[in-house]
Amino acid sequence: MQTPWEYRYAHRMQKMGSSVIRELLKLTEQPDIISFAGGLPASDVFPVEEFRAACNHVLDHFGPQALQYSTTEGYRPLREMIARHTARYNIETTADNILITSGSQQALDFIGRLFLNRGDYIVVESPTYLGALQAWNAYGAQYIPVRADEEGMIVDELEAALRIGPKFIYVLPNFQNPSGSTLSLERRHKLVELADRYGVPIVEDDPYGQLRYEGDHIPSIVSLDSEYRGPNGGGHYSGNVIYLSTFSKLLAPGLRLAWVIAPPEVIRKLVMTKQAADLHTSSFNQYVAYEVAKGGFLDEHVKVIRAVYKERRDVMFEMMEEVFPTGVTWSKPHGGMFLWGVLPEGMDAAEVLQRAIEKKVAFVPGAAFHPRGGGENTMRINFSYSSPEVIREGVIRLGTTLKELLGEKV
Amino acid sequence: MQTPWEYRYAHRMQKMGSSVIRELLKLTEQPDIISFAGGLPASDVFPVEEFRAACNHVLDHFGPQALQYSTTEGYRPLREMIARHTARYNIETTADNILITSGSQQALDFIGRLFLNRGDYIVVESPTYLGALQAWNAYGAQYIPVRADEEGMIVDELEAALRIGPKFIYVLPNFQNPSGSTLSLERRHKLVELADRYGVPIVEDDPYGQLRYEGDHIPSIVSLDSEYRGPNGGGHYSGNVIYLSTFSKLLAPGLRLAWVIAPPEVIRKLVMTKQAADLHTSSFNQYVAYEVAKGGFLDEHVKVIRAVYKERRDVMFEMMEEVFPTGVTWSKPHGGMFLWGVLPEGMDAAEVLQRAIEKKVAFVPGAAFHPRGGGENTMRINFSYSSPEVIREGVIRLGTTLKELLGEKV
Repeated sequence: MQTPWEYRYAHRMQKMGSSVIRELLKLTEQPDIISFAGGLPASDVFPVEEFRAACNHVLDHFGPQALQYSTTEGYRPLREMIARHTARYNIETTADNILITSGSQQALDFIGRLFLNRGDYIVVESPTYLGALQAWNAYGAQYIPVRADEEGMIVDELEAALRIGPKFIYVLPNFQNPSGSTLSLERRHKLVELADRYGVPIVEDDPYGQLRYEGDHIPSIVSLDSEYRGPNGGGHYSGNVIYLSTFSKLLAPGLRLAWVIAPPEVIRKLVMTKQAADLHTSSFNQYVAYEVAKGGFLDEHVKVIRAVYKERRDVMFEMMEEVFPTGVTWSKPHGGMFLWGVLPEGMDAAEVLQRAIEKKVAFVPGAAFHPRGGGENTMRINFSYSSPEVIREGVIRLGTTLKELLGEKV
Repeated sequence: MQTPWEYRYAHRMQKMGSSVIRELLKLTEQPDIISFAGGLPASDVFPVEEFRAACNHVLDHFGPQALQYSTTEGYRPLREMIARHTARYNIETTADNILITSGSQQALDFIGRLFLNRGDYIVVESPTYLGALQAWNAYGAQYIPVRADEEGMIVDELEAALRIGPKFIYVLPNFQNPSGSTLSLERRHKLVELADRYGVPIVEDDPYGQLRYEGDHIPSIVSLDSEYRGPNGGGHYSGNVIYLSTFSKLLAPGLRLAWVIAPPEVIRKLVMTKQAADLHTSSFNQYVAYEVAKGGFLDEHVKVIRAVYKERRDVMFEMMEEVFPTGVTWSKPHGGMFLWGVLPEGMDAAEVLQRAIEKKVAFVPGAAFHPRGGGENTMRINFSYSSPEVIREGVIRLGTTLKELLGEKV
């Protein structure tokens, strides 16, 4: 029976039901489990000393302002710094193009609030980021999945999707969460052109772009769109893309600091959305992040992160090669935090997880990343969080689980 | 003509139109204006040194955890501290009753998300807090205003409102924003009983409860509701009230830290809401706030705040007595940050604001706090932010403006 409280929000709960997977993943929080399930950056690379110096500097020089209410748009020097950084990639950008949000999750939520009516369609890669689906499910979104391969969304299949009339296209071009795939330059060009032809905006979610361990940087979709349109005379970006990025992977997620780049008119509406939602993002954290980042520290720090994550990824590759049974394959991402495992057709990753947890290792079954079903035989595996030693042991446990389930004797 | 972007969110914009008042209030950000318009705590009482010590302590001892992703519910020691604090007021409370939010504005937003369907009614005091109206307008709420006097909502008029079938009752019982009124104990009891009889929950918004400068503390509605129901055997609160409070007025708003107290089942749903909205509130800020608050510092610090604000309030009273023309009256709040000015019937506070800005002083016209119109001759005046000297000068300017408009020679 429903309690009186439950009757009052029953209409929301269909969208928010607790899932079997969520219950399983709770088990992965036990301390003796090696979890490749989370999407956490490595805690040991957080620049704690730089944070300490920045906190002290901010409290010395800007205490009263940094602890006071501030503007909804975000701390202007931080927005200007992001604008300068963005302009390095040949996008005309000003602070008017930028909104600071409390993590990219909040930007995804606000985009849902601003654009979505119940039943609206969004074109997504399949698989796609679960957090985006969670944000937009709350607004009654429906999804048009477009297949993806190691080069990202198969853009040749996009046109049919655009003719259905989606509100926007959602794409994670670099080292995608969950698959690790990266959209090729050729496909990015084609995506920009097709989106323009059909008048459908693009939401480009780019938390991992800087975390590349091999190969060359590929220009962002927003920069290609900017180039495609040419200068607008206003000095700011005014194209067809809403671009999201974050300090979570470069500095620390515990600050909850991310940013949106969009045409000024879109930023203004997002600002009004944010004002009603939480007034503004922590002023103190914005001052501190600016202080940490302003002297070019991030460029140096990201090299450290790249070295650490590359080693972890390579250890994982190596161990999988060694212990995973024939028939199980995995992607070879050039960056980011995840790789994508594929089990033999007909094998269920949720069952593998159940057995894996008994052996004290965990991952996320891939079905959850498919908004319209499928992917039961896929797995998202994180390599950024655990140390190389732990990765070694975890892959051995996972390999043993897979071998047992595939009926091979260990 | 609408731009292509505007066509995509036009359906949201009816609710978010820029207003004349908002444009006027932008002018109050000029540095030479004395603004009684904001709702800002005094920057000069922020405990900057305690923050510095706390930041250093947290980074010394908990750097990696405090900078990492954390749970959506909030940092457990902070929630437990709030639960212990709440239990001092005879409410059975556990950490399961508590969710940390990014400011109370976010709690208001989440309550809207969870409970409201387009067209749902909310009972509000008239006038009521503008931020709540902004949060809930986004969900298509309608309002049933119940009149208020110096003792808060006139509860005798509540019953008729409850028979309309509202989703909940929203009330700011202590030193209300905007009017400064405080709900009497007798009315609180009656409110609890009526809400129970009609099965309508209460949202109690209490940012200022601790900022009392005279008179005795009046028990919160949630504690009266808890008492009314008696022990539930579960050790936690499971009544009819969702209670909101915040560190913004006790510590510093720039941290964006507030909390919700509600039955565990409601907290669980709010947690799911928050997970989709922004994952969690800054872990670092939660560690820091816990560190600042844990040794009983807040009890001492609030005494400092009370002394500072009381002086400012009294200076404002005194100056108004001296310079305001006959026919203009104002409330005498026992705490909080605002008083409520009432102009002679037929006089428009928006016109007064326009003239006041010319004289370099500002306030907020009261009409905006009335969701169904009215209050054109009222003004919200803040006394917490400006120093006594500035308050003196500002009230003189405002008095001059009023005298001129009332046709009296200065």
